[in-house]
Amino acid sequence: MRKVEVCLTPELIHQFDLKSKIVVVVDIFRATSCMVSGIASGVKAIYPVATVEECFANGQKGMTTAGERGGIKVEGFDIGNSPFEYMSPALVGKEVSVSTTNGTKTILASLGASQILIGAFLNLSDTAEYLKKENKDVIIHCAGWQGTVNIEDTLYAGALSDAISETHEISGDPALLSLQLYLANNTDLMPIAHASSHAQRLSGFGAKEDLAYCMGLSKYNIVVAYANNAIGLLK
Amino acid sequence: MRKVEVCLTPELIHQFDLKSKIVVVVDIFRATSCMVSGIASGVKAIYPVATVEECFANGQKGMTTAGERGGIKVEGFDIGNSPFEYMSPALVGKEVSVSTTNGTKTILASLGASQILIGAFLNLSDTAEYLKKENKDVIIHCAGWQGTVNIEDTLYAGALSDAISETHEISGDPALLSLQLYLANNTDLMPIAHASSHAQRLSGFGAKEDLAYCMGLSKYNIVVAYANNAIGLLK
Repeated sequence: MRKVEVCLTPELIHQFDLKSKIVVVVDIFRATSCMVSGIASGVKAIYPVATVEECFANGQKGMTTAGERGGIKVEGFDIGNSPFEYMSPALVGKEVSVSTTNGTKTILASLGASQILIGAFLNLSDTAEYLKKENKDVIIHCAGWQGTVNIEDTLYAGALSDAISETHEISGDPALLSLQLYLANNTDLMPIAHASSHAQRLSGFGAKEDLAYCMGLSKYNIVVAYANNAIGLLK
Repeated sequence: MRKVEVCLTPELIHQFDLKSKIVVVVDIFRATSCMVSGIASGVKAIYPVATVEECFANGQKGMTTAGERGGIKVEGFDIGNSPFEYMSPALVGKEVSVSTTNGTKTILASLGASQILIGAFLNLSDTAEYLKKENKDVIIHCAGWQGTVNIEDTLYAGALSDAISETHEISGDPALLSLQLYLANNTDLMPIAHASSHAQRLSGFGAKEDLAYCMGLSKYNIVVAYANNAIGLLK
């Protein structure tokens, strides 16, 4: 049987062997939810970069600049880090370059894997179906918050682990912990998601609508992957 | 209201400000369970050291040498890492020097705190009562396994957080995650504890009795602390 492991924060990714595995990167509030929403809405490709400077440089090449630091839009960027901004008709067919506090760093820390997928509750079901068909072990890589473990990404890790548990054995204590968190809350994920530190932080920025939207389950029937520096539609 | 935070592995302890706080170090399987059992059974003091060499040096000074690497007794040490060894009548009034894979390292990584307590399910109730009376924030520092997050220490973190929740606010997502794990399993902690990776590992070494014993709740009405290089009875 294949295995699914969970890395609770990028600070612990060195404990995992990425080789030959599919890594699913998740940053529910809000980077990967933005990416999935953008691709679902017709954005051509999204280029994640580590620094604000690289993002501006891509902007000079004609890309839309996007991202935040500490949850707040970077001054001078075209858009911030709200999924609704990624769903603008003005972005259909366009390329976006993005830099965020946690999400883009987690993608770049996943290099070395056989394949990197972009996960969100918004496309959980299709991501799970894809993983069930591929003959590979899976690592769910939670972005967390500035290196710390967070609730919402761990919750997603538990939900995705549960969704592929027929084909993938829950491997290691962090995966078991994530599954327990999900199973204890799966009748209604909203209360625990809202209790998370980052939800509290974002509510302070007036991003309450974003939070409810990001917890929407399997709204989009797409699989999103990162390859050759870009995030795009896999299927 | 005071706060309780949880550090899920020593690899993340740099994310916490230890100053002026009480740190409770926990390594359920089995270092801190051994320490609490030893002190409860009349061991005079336990000196945790990082290396096998320091432990042998303390042995030369007349201390009993104790500890393991990878769960197995270090060759040449007097005792290994089973709580039953610490409860031997031969150790009453004696000093023990101990070095283990995770537990002793976690104690040493907690230096800088206002006070360091040694926690285990075996003395959970008295530790909680002590914390409720002290006017300090608390960090529960889980030893984990070789830097990884484990189930049994996280479970204890949740149990202790719950026990002091009237006086200490659950602060941060790792504490909330620990509490959720505990509350989802508190009618019977044994199944989830046995499902942990380290329980599986130890069962392979024939340490099944140790596991059941270490999950025993509040058997000892003592508080155990680390100060001046030694672990001993606080009250």
